[in-house]
Amino acid sequence: MELEFLGTGAGSPAKFRNVTSLALKLLDERNAVWLFDVGEGTQQQILRTTIRPRKIEKIFITHLHGDHIFGLPGFLSSRSFQGGEGTLTIYGPRGIRDYVMTSLRVSETHLSYPLNFVEITKEGILFDDATFRVECLRLDHRIASYGYRVVEKDHPGELLVAKLKELGVPAGPLYGQLKTRKDVTLADGTLLHGPDFIGAAQKGRIITILGDTRLTKNSYKLAKDADVLVHESTFSKAEAKMATNYYHSTSAQAADVAKKSGVQQLLLTHISARYVGKMALNLQEEARKTFSNTRVVKDFDQIKVPLRN
Amino acid sequence: MELEFLGTGAGSPAKFRNVTSLALKLLDERNAVWLFDVGEGTQQQILRTTIRPRKIEKIFITHLHGDHIFGLPGFLSSRSFQGGEGTLTIYGPRGIRDYVMTSLRVSETHLSYPLNFVEITKEGILFDDATFRVECLRLDHRIASYGYRVVEKDHPGELLVAKLKELGVPAGPLYGQLKTRKDVTLADGTLLHGPDFIGAAQKGRIITILGDTRLTKNSYKLAKDADVLVHESTFSKAEAKMATNYYHSTSAQAADVAKKSGVQQLLLTHISARYVGKMALNLQEEARKTFSNTRVVKDFDQIKVPLRN
Ligand SMILES: [Zn+2]
Ligand SMILES: [Zn+2]
Repeated sequence: MELEFLGTGAGSPAKFRNVTSLALKLLDERNAVWLFDVGEGTQQQILRTTIRPRKIEKIFITHLHGDHIFGLPGFLSSRSFQGGEGTLTIYGPRGIRDYVMTSLRVSETHLSYPLNFVEITKEGILFDDATFRVECLRLDHRIASYGYRVVEKDHPGELLVAKLKELGVPAGPLYGQLKTRKDVTLADGTLLHGPDFIGAAQKGRIITILGDTRLTKNSYKLAKDADVLVHESTFSKAEAKMATNYYHSTSAQAADVAKKSGVQQLLLTHISARYVGKMALNLQEEARKTFSNTRVVKDFDQIKVPLRN
Repeated sequence: MELEFLGTGAGSPAKFRNVTSLALKLLDERNAVWLFDVGEGTQQQILRTTIRPRKIEKIFITHLHGDHIFGLPGFLSSRSFQGGEGTLTIYGPRGIRDYVMTSLRVSETHLSYPLNFVEITKEGILFDDATFRVECLRLDHRIASYGYRVVEKDHPGELLVAKLKELGVPAGPLYGQLKTRKDVTLADGTLLHGPDFIGAAQKGRIITILGDTRLTKNSYKLAKDADVLVHESTFSKAEAKMATNYYHSTSAQAADVAKKSGVQQLLLTHISARYVGKMALNLQEEARKTFSNTRVVKDFDQIKVPLRN
């Protein structure tokens, strides 16, 4: 599990920060990649990475501002052009389907794969399968903006094969029964207590990715105990009033969410072009006063998210 | 007058060729820049040039395929974000307004300047003012595709001030009359024949920019006597059958248009990603066998178009 930032700027593209897009690479977990927002030029950014468009199975849009969606039609077309066949599902606020379908219709683009839309009508669980659950809550922006909480299901403990071999239990159907935590009696009358032969379960990881927002209660809920919180940081601490007026956050506010929610790591993105080079590090310093494990990300930064135990 | 290529690729962006866009810089002529097609990422390309978005007063769209229009909404937004106030007019096939207006509506983008649309309903003159005329004709592509012929009005000859000074005619209202080619009688009875004091007129330049197309008669008409012909070159001479099947042209076909239309210079663009680096030069060599003043352009190439005399 790894995050790769494809665009970390705010509003308009700048020379060294493209507009917003973030890839959550789940190659080991489900041989897939998910995108969060697709600003203009995302497909060009992808060309400079190892991400293969056909592996992208889900796209989550936080809100409909242009710097978060104008790269969608081009990305969808190129995924088709490159022979992508797997179904792609787009989750996002109401309106995303109209925008995408109009773009494809006017340009007479015919995709080589099925395209699904899930327009958000209520908060809560958006998606749930054997390995992941995704929840969303409304944030506080000028237009409907959502935060996503990606919850990996716990990894069940593995069968302790070495321990069984030590006892002389041969591989076979018994292993299958033990794996389901059942008790098993061997031919010689020995009773094996199933749970004794299963290793410790591993907690699934939690990744929280928020759209543009003012400081708001739902951010704390979405970030609760997350391994990684990706938070916008459009303004500095001194500009808190501006942040409120423009429906954005300061770096210090993001740090407060990280701290009070007990997250492991805070990644600050959606950096204004006013913060060039080293100046972006000031945002990081401000946040670190509240929450030390904070990093301002750049385009193409890759952040691995390890299991905790 | 100068052309600057912002994207010279075909279909999908490649690492070294972005999708189609071309700037016609008319800074001396009308303090303005015109764009022809706006593929995704055009605004990012513009960031690497000296072009100021607010100077762009007209955008001509050749056809509605995604690689020619998906950069429009982002460009329009950024022009607004950067404080552009001048009216912008978009010319293009029917459907361009629907695409742009849906994109702006869904993203709740409010532009700081008036935006006009001229959807092409018939071939002929699209625009005509004191300095330029733009004509369009239909080409032969899978969807409606147009070629544009930009005709600069002739520059009237300048008043020959040195010649007047030699004759001792003082600067004053007389100069104004002579400039309008009127005859003038001096106080000493000398008759000055107006046209004798006007230098030679300079022919206006003709720039022909074609959208994606198969070889077709209208290309020859549009290119007649042009100073520069910008022509797609998606395929090589050996792939003429493919070119026809996919509604595109070969480099040799482009050269035939240039030669038979008597153009001064042929610029080949819309180069497939299959032609990497030196391979694109093969397209150039093929064309040069028919028309020697041919050049395959790259992103950011700038080509000055001088007056002929
Ligand atoms: Zn934004
Ligand atoms: Zn094209």
